[in-house]
Order: sequence, then structure tokens, then C-alpha cells
Amino acid sequence: MNLSIAHLGPSGNYSEQAALFYVNWLTKTCENQAILCPYPSIAQSLKAVVQGKAMQAIVPAENSIEGSVTMTMDTMWQLDSLRIELALIMPIVHVLISCASSLDTIQTVYSHPQALAQCQGWLESFLPSVQLIPTNSTTEVLERLEIDSCAAAISSQRAAQLYNLPILAAGINDHPDNCTRFWVVRGNTSQDFQFVSNKKHTSLAFSLRANKPGALVKALEIFAALNVNMSRIESRPTKRSLGEYLFFIDIEADASNQIIQSALQELSTYTEVLKIFGSYDAVSTRDIS
Amino acid sequence: MNLSIAHLGPSGNYSEQAALFYVNWLTKTCENQAILCPYPSIAQSLKAVVQGKAMQAIVPAENSIEGSVTMTMDTMWQLDSLRIELALIMPIVHVLISCASSLDTIQTVYSHPQALAQCQGWLESFLPSVQLIPTNSTTEVLERLEIDSCAAAISSQRAAQLYNLPILAAGINDHPDNCTRFWVVRGNTSQDFQFVSNKKHTSLAFSLRANKPGALVKALEIFAALNVNMSRIESRPTKRSLGEYLFFIDIEADASNQIIQSALQELSTYTEVLKIFGSYDAVSTRDIS
Repeated sequence: MNLSIAHLGPSGNYSEQAALFYVNWLTKTCENQAILCPYPSIAQSLKAVVQGKAMQAIVPAENSIEGSVTMTMDTMWQLDSLRIELALIMPIVHVLISCASSLDTIQTVYSHPQALAQCQGWLESFLPSVQLIPTNSTTEVLERLEIDSCAAAISSQRAAQLYNLPILAAGINDHPDNCTRFWVVRGNTSQDFQFVSNKKHTSLAFSLRANKPGALVKALEIFAALNVNMSRIESRPTKRSLGEYLFFIDIEADASNQIIQSALQELSTYTEVLKIFGSYDAVSTRDIS
Repeated sequence: MNLSIAHLGPSGNYSEQAALFYVNWLTKTCENQAILCPYPSIAQSLKAVVQGKAMQAIVPAENSIEGSVTMTMDTMWQLDSLRIELALIMPIVHVLISCASSLDTIQTVYSHPQALAQCQGWLESFLPSVQLIPTNSTTEVLERLEIDSCAAAISSQRAAQLYNLPILAAGINDHPDNCTRFWVVRGNTSQDFQFVSNKKHTSLAFSLRANKPGALVKALEIFAALNVNMSRIESRPTKRSLGEYLFFIDIEADASNQIIQSALQELSTYTEVLKIFGSYDAVSTRDIS
């Protein structure tokens, strides 16, 4: 069977890299062949699944340095009928790509603002006097590197391979433990939660009925009372008015478990809207490659 | 007395606009004259205060659509001896700037990715076939508009005035209630919290001693038990490892209040590091202009 997997493009970025890991793993563990479908935004990758254009999407959910990927959270909330199937944790290794003969001749370094921020210490130590230019399209920059040997870009090892460009320095991120958690998302089916699946993580989001003192705490106490660990809490604006929030929560439990089912039932008495994004396990790309 | 106020540059952006509101208000309410000092980043604006180069900084804390400004949160956590003095709430009104004679002749629209996202609906309705180009420097684009009458930029009304460029459409953001909360921040003094100040809001952040089930809930219950409303909760990665968080919390109370003082004392038994960023009131630019 052919499986189409939507991801944020273009080729060479970390979302494509995560999708490749996932596809290789799928091919190893089952007979499925998969094809990658790059989309110009995270929102469009997720919409492709809802519209049936792709069977799954792989989207970044959280980075260990930058925190939650708000576009993923906001789109998961907006779109119905999406289900997280798996979390994929991938180390992020930034490399310096340039046709310069040595670091000394580099005058400008281009990259996405987040990548520049994540390599700030290295840049200050090794390239203290270069001009840093934030850019949204690293691809455009990579095409320019071949004609400008005084320029460099920070990107992934895979981008260097794809564009056949030399890597001058690898692993230049200041935090070596930099990694991103991706979600593999598929369309919702009516069979969800009918069988006990015993997965380790459940992601959900809710808005509260009233912005009363303690309303959020009461909602969270439900899980604390069951000794269920909440591994993440994130607030996002409802976009209605300043100070009104949605809450995104990850708990370390399976939503098909009967105790968790009744906890979610109790939670729904405090919430205005409650969405369960699914129960899933997490794998590291280090373990599956 | 001359007061120097650091803010994110360049001229024409919303941080400068907020700083101008604040300065005008200061001039009206007291004898202080103030000068604005633009800095290339939010982090550098805050560092300028710590280093004594500026007396105050005005930084964006939260937008009603985009949520928390993570750079502000992360820098407030990293730097010691900063104190929030005031919250300033300012409506964000995006305008379309172009030398085109009408909307029909526009082929490309440049802006910061967040501004493009915030005007997505308007752009789809009124300029469905233009090319949208995300850019980090709107200033650079504004300089280009005069020679390219097929191009447009989304920016602030003030940017149009500064560059003497025509506004083709105003208030084009999809959410009319789009507003940003800025913080006016100054250096810490030893006198803080010695006097009861009766301010409405207190911002604080903490890391927890242990990532145990219910640890966060226990910390939050302290305020809930006192009937103190928590108006915001935000988690940020500790940047040590994926799944370890700091929590940023706003409560509707003054930290100099004796009951809150003992609540904070109790909170500190659960926290590894606890930072109080100050107690302050909030004003709207609509009320002070």
C-alpha cells in the first residue's frame, strides 16, 4: 500500500528529515511504501490530512530550546478529526555551510532567526565580526552560496548534501541536547478509543467555562488526584480577547484507560470545549535508524 | 530629569509606538523628559537596563493572537535585577502601504510572517492572487516601495508616516481586537516590596524541584486556596532537556501584600528557582493618549 505523508517543505529542512526517518522505519517494520508530500506551511500539511490529500502528516510540536510550535498547536485546535499516532524525537544538529576556504574569509552568515539564536555562542566565539542576516528561506540562500564564497548559511547536514555544498563546521548549536518532538498525525476514525491501547502519552486541549479563580487548578487536580503526571502545559490565546486562553496538556496515560476516561468526563464539566488529540508512544530517531 | 528608554528598533515598529505612548504619558503626568533608545533585539533592550545604559525598557510581553513573546520571557528569566513597573496595552492596527494607484495593480505583499498571518483573511478576500513574501526587515521593504509601485507592505500607520508613504487600506487585521501587552521594565532596587503598593498584577516564574506528578498543581493550589486569580500560565523549556519546563505565571494580586508574601514563601518550598518580576498596574494606550 502506498502511504502519502505531508510535511512542511522545502527539501532539506528538519521536518523533511523527520519524515524520512519515519518513512524508513515504516518500510523496515511493515510492507508500506510511503511518499513524501511537502507543503508550504504546517497548517497546510495538517489540512491535507483532513481533506484526504495525504494519509498522514508529520509536524513539529515542540523544540527543547524554542518551546512549543504554536502554529501546530493552533491548527490542531482549529481542525477537527485529527489524531496523533506517534511522537518522534529527533536531535537537531546545525551545520555551517559555505564555499569559503576557511572561517576567516566568511563575512556574512544567513539563516532562519531561530537557528541564528541557537548558534549565538558559537558564532560569537568563532565568527565574532561577521554580519548575521536573518532570512525566512534558507533554500534561497543555499543557492546563492556557490557564487558568493564570503557567505555562509546555517542549516541541516541534509541540506548541505542536497545542494552538494561543503560543511565548514558541524554541531555548532550552543545546546548539544537540542531536539525536536514531531507528531505523526492521521485522520480520526470512529474506532478510536474503542479498544484499550495502553499508550504512554495523551495530548489534549481545552478552553474553560469561566475565567474564575482556581478554574484551571480544579481541572488539573483531576489528574493529580489520580497520580497521573502532566508532562506539559501550554497556554495559547483564544484570539478573542487578551487574557483568554486555551490550555494544551500532555499527560502520561492512555485515554482509552477506563480511569482516564472518567477523569476526562469529570474534566469536561469544567471545560467549554475539550479536544482529545490522541494517545501515542514516543520513539527517538536514534533508536529507529 | 532625562529618562532613557530602551526598545526594540527600528523606528516605525510597534515597540517604538508603545514607547512613544509611554513617553508622552510621562511628559504629561510628571516633569520627566525621556529619550528613546532603539536596540536590535528585545534581549539587548533588557540588557541595556541591567548594564545601566538605559533607565527603563519597554518590551512586548504578549499578543492577543500570537501569545507570549518567548524572547521576553526567556530574557527576563536569564537576567537578574529587572522589575516590571507597568503594563501597557496597545491595539495593533495593520495597514497596507503601497505606491500603487489601486489594489488591482499590486503583485507582491511583503511583511513579517506574523503580520502576514494576522491579515490572512483580508489578503485572501482583497488580494487573492498576489505573492506573499515573508521578510524580517519591513524597513528594507518600505525603502523599496517608492521604486516598485507593484509592491506593498503590511506595517503600522506610524511606519507609513515615517517613510512618507501612502496607506491603501487600514485596519486590515482579521481580528479587530488584536492588541499587545507591553511591559515597562526598570532595574531592581533594594526598596522593592518594603512598602505595600496595592498593584493589580504580579508576574513571576519558577522551575520546580522535581518533575513529580502533581508538583505543578500543588504550586498552583496555593493561589487558588487564597481565591487569587491566575490570569496567565505559560511554560517555557528549561533548555536543559526536552520535557523540563519553567512556568511563567501572572496573578491578580500585589506581591507586597502580607498574605501573598506568605503564599510566595509556601510556593518556594516547591520551587527550585523562584523569580518575582514585580507588581504593577495595567493601562491602555486608549486611556492615556
